[in-house]
Amino acid sequence: MPERSLIFPAQEYRDRVARLQAHMDAAGMGAVLLTSAADVFYVTGFLTRFWESPARPWFIVVPSAGEPVAVIPSIGAELMGRTWMPQIRTWDAPDPRDDGVSLLAETLAGLVGPEGQIGVPMGLETQLRMPLADYAELGRKLAPRRFVDATDVVQLVREVKSEAEIARIRESCAIAGRAFDRVPEFAGAGRPLDRVFRDFQVTLLQEGADWVSYVAGGAGPDGYGDVISPAAETPLQPGDVLMLDTGAVRNGYFCDYDRNFAIGRASDAAKRAHAALWGATQSVLEALRPGHRACDVHRMLCDGLRRHGAEPGGGRLGHGLGITLTEWPSFTALDTTELREGMVLTLEPGAVLREGVIQVHEENIVLRADGPELLSPRAPSELPEIHE
Amino acid sequence: MPERSLIFPAQEYRDRVARLQAHMDAAGMGAVLLTSAADVFYVTGFLTRFWESPARPWFIVVPSAGEPVAVIPSIGAELMGRTWMPQIRTWDAPDPRDDGVSLLAETLAGLVGPEGQIGVPMGLETQLRMPLADYAELGRKLAPRRFVDATDVVQLVREVKSEAEIARIRESCAIAGRAFDRVPEFAGAGRPLDRVFRDFQVTLLQEGADWVSYVAGGAGPDGYGDVISPAAETPLQPGDVLMLDTGAVRNGYFCDYDRNFAIGRASDAAKRAHAALWGATQSVLEALRPGHRACDVHRMLCDGLRRHGAEPGGGRLGHGLGITLTEWPSFTALDTTELREGMVLTLEPGAVLREGVIQVHEENIVLRADGPELLSPRAPSELPEIHE
Repeated sequence: MPERSLIFPAQEYRDRVARLQAHMDAAGMGAVLLTSAADVFYVTGFLTRFWESPARPWFIVVPSAGEPVAVIPSIGAELMGRTWMPQIRTWDAPDPRDDGVSLLAETLAGLVGPEGQIGVPMGLETQLRMPLADYAELGRKLAPRRFVDATDVVQLVREVKSEAEIARIRESCAIAGRAFDRVPEFAGAGRPLDRVFRDFQVTLLQEGADWVSYVAGGAGPDGYGDVISPAAETPLQPGDVLMLDTGAVRNGYFCDYDRNFAIGRASDAAKRAHAALWGATQSVLEALRPGHRACDVHRMLCDGLRRHGAEPGGGRLGHGLGITLTEWPSFTALDTTELREGMVLTLEPGAVLREGVIQVHEENIVLRADGPELLSPRAPSELPEIHE
Repeated sequence: MPERSLIFPAQEYRDRVARLQAHMDAAGMGAVLLTSAADVFYVTGFLTRFWESPARPWFIVVPSAGEPVAVIPSIGAELMGRTWMPQIRTWDAPDPRDDGVSLLAETLAGLVGPEGQIGVPMGLETQLRMPLADYAELGRKLAPRRFVDATDVVQLVREVKSEAEIARIRESCAIAGRAFDRVPEFAGAGRPLDRVFRDFQVTLLQEGADWVSYVAGGAGPDGYGDVISPAAETPLQPGDVLMLDTGAVRNGYFCDYDRNFAIGRASDAAKRAHAALWGATQSVLEALRPGHRACDVHRMLCDGLRRHGAEPGGGRLGHGLGITLTEWPSFTALDTTELREGMVLTLEPGAVLREGVIQVHEENIVLRADGPELLSPRAPSELPEIHE
């Protein structure tokens, strides 16, 4: 199974570590400690659904110079051993007396001097995947070394994708594209929404997804109320607009985009909203360039919607994408992150049709020097109708 | 969609909160702060796959008396509004200036006096799902109030399931049971393992899973090497033993069990290992009672395996189960947790056939006053063979 557990040649990971180390050096960190599934996968290629179990913590230590070290439960030793990782230390987890804390402290102490700083992601969109009490104990064992925020160090590296990563995301987008093409096979008037959600997941798997980490959607007259609810058993009705959204995963890389379908004949209001969403997206596809900020995209999408006669809705209108369903930055009025060449992003405008009824539209892109390149097959400009 | 977002009648949640409050009172906590998907779902019934996005934190505050408060991103207001939750406060997330921290601090300060203690789960198997820097800022805003460990408070309540919860888990187990019955339809000599994994997920969805959060497995002569790797494209061979393991989800409740299948004729070694696993499990099904400790189950399973001529393998030999794929306790030699009536547990012995080759076997049970009641349909006592 080596090709599936490694995902990329070892050089890809060496390059990532070198980029991390350059940022760590600039930030004065002796090492960074990574605990999340995404950060561990990014450095190692260690891909497993076993993260679904909260029982065990997993640690990757990247020193400011030299090779990274995996400090992991022994149940993962075989799989980690098939990745490029040069150093693997294990303990038998879960251990209520000491669940890897001493081994991790010893590893960090061997790499970072007593006056040194250890980076841990602490900022927006980060979470520490280890028990808080163990983190406190680790701090006591490592004192006077200090933990400092490594959010920027990690994000500045992860947010710019390599061509190998872009190819993976394009592949996930293509899988979803083939599944969206087949929606008329299983969605139509009278079909319960929860069955449509199931059939959509089945179709994504049949089209090549390794697993389906996210499906959401909604359906109602001309649009829907919210976009995060599980599906009810309510049958689709003529006049409904059905939206399906997915984060399907292939080789650890996500797509994240949606499509809308009218059930039967679409109303003029539904068609206008869809056209405005499509048009606003088109404006950004034409105008966006590296150097724009995240808040500029928010403004461009809002302006585009209003130009097409629609009222912008929703909070953020897109975000980063890659090894989690959503990554920073956020296309809001408040996010001033500079967009750089190689970022993979979603454009996700929302339009309010009336109180409690919205439509959302989403595409996935990679930002090139001369503007966006689509990774998702472009949505049709007119709202498609599903007739029996 | 109310019945799907609520999952249970409001009284179920009121009972849970009352039980939490009794433990909080005994522990001297003015409130507990919950941030994980499972803890939020447990108190509120708020069920969504939106947790897959790491962008936004979600908070539930349970005061030692009175009603709980949801402090959540506004994107979740509609869905949370359809649950029983009496008080919902929202902010527009993600907000890089203040991502709900002030609103949460204000909520907690209104419920807990300056000398009070706020419980946060900090122990084994817990994670804080909010940025560390925001947690530190929350602590500064709330001083001199102190954060203390609420792991026991939450676990003592969550680990004993209500009859309504047990019915949900039984339903998820039944879905997996029907899918396991259909494995011979898609697994056989020559079929690539990654396709078998996909077909198994498809079958779980067809049999009623809302989504499939976990599929793992392995295949090899008489057994397999590890049980957490993604599937390779290697075709199944006659003489392989195929294991499939799943955490399929229905209404937010998991099953977690596996089944083994011989591809073609099973060897005597493979049959003996399977019989030992089955027999060791049978001994525990007959002997286990409330009052036993987690480490007793570990010992009973190891003894049972040896009695049947097999060498025990793997780390923990089972665990709790419910609203996450795995819950505490762990059936290891080190876990002294007392097993109580109403706990839902997995029995998961592993047998080592030879270096690098194991077989594992798993059943899901609820512990009753007079012993285990099976929630998974019992595995066949003899290793089933799949012939073309």
